[in-house]
Amino acid sequence: MSSQSPLAPGALLARGVARHLRSLDFMSVPEVTLPGRLRVDLMALGPKGEIWVVECKSSRADFMADGKWQGYLEWADRFFWAVDADFPIDLLPDNSGLIMADGYGAEILRMPDATPLAAARRKSVTLRFARVAAARHQGMCDAGITWGA
Amino acid sequence: MSSQSPLAPGALLARGVARHLRSLDFMSVPEVTLPGRLRVDLMALGPKGEIWVVECKSSRADFMADGKWQGYLEWADRFFWAVDADFPIDLLPDNSGLIMADGYGAEILRMPDATPLAAARRKSVTLRFARVAAARHQGMCDAGITWGA
Repeated sequence: MSSQSPLAPGALLARGVARHLRSLDFMSVPEVTLPGRLRVDLMALGPKGEIWVVECKSSRADFMADGKWQGYLEWADRFFWAVDADFPIDLLPDNSGLIMADGYGAEILRMPDATPLAAARRKSVTLRFARVAAARHQGMCDAGITWGA
Repeated sequence: MSSQSPLAPGALLARGVARHLRSLDFMSVPEVTLPGRLRVDLMALGPKGEIWVVECKSSRADFMADGKWQGYLEWADRFFWAVDADFPIDLLPDNSGLIMADGYGAEILRMPDATPLAAARRKSVTLRFARVAAARHQGMCDAGITWGA
């Protein structure tokens, strides 16, 4: 995500969600890869180590094409969908979290129950989040580093 | 640190050190604050969760003015000094790590013994690192976010 180039619809939603989560003291990183060829749109880390995953869906087609989302549940204490005001929210599972977003902000409409991660899983996800965030930050600060992680 | 503005001597060293650490699969974040009004120049997180702290000293005066460094020891598995080729290295404690650096790279000259953090401390430092890294990254990606954390 860069403020210089136009963002794709999903990335715009992710930006708005990340802004709102920050106001709740959750720090986010977009596009975090996980084992099993999974990649979550946004992973957020709360002040007590809470791990939230947010999948951003810009359209019905975007949602219908996602065959992997149930795999994300085991990587988060809470799982949310983020959609814009035009999205047909009846498509979404009732027991997931729901965030209404645009590129500038967001609001949590439905807070899902927490299903806390086991300690070892939480440790490994937190480490992954930390290393991805640091690598991305370094990539942006230092033109001598190629992007990645 | 920005590649657009000139870096202070200490920040230049930190950039070179961070590049080298990355080649060892350690991801770094500069200027991480810790309880007790401490702020370390560079904190790095290894693939197994190892936490290294590096203090970058650009001159004898810079080193002599640091009355806090012993406070950093309890926040890292390994502690290093990073200096440039002109630094009088006889000033530095023998049992600390030693890294020779410039703005473009670095080399570890002396690997200190590891003094592994207790599990609770490691968990809290890793969480702090993760949230600082993510907040900094978000601050750079999204012009709508003010810097901080």
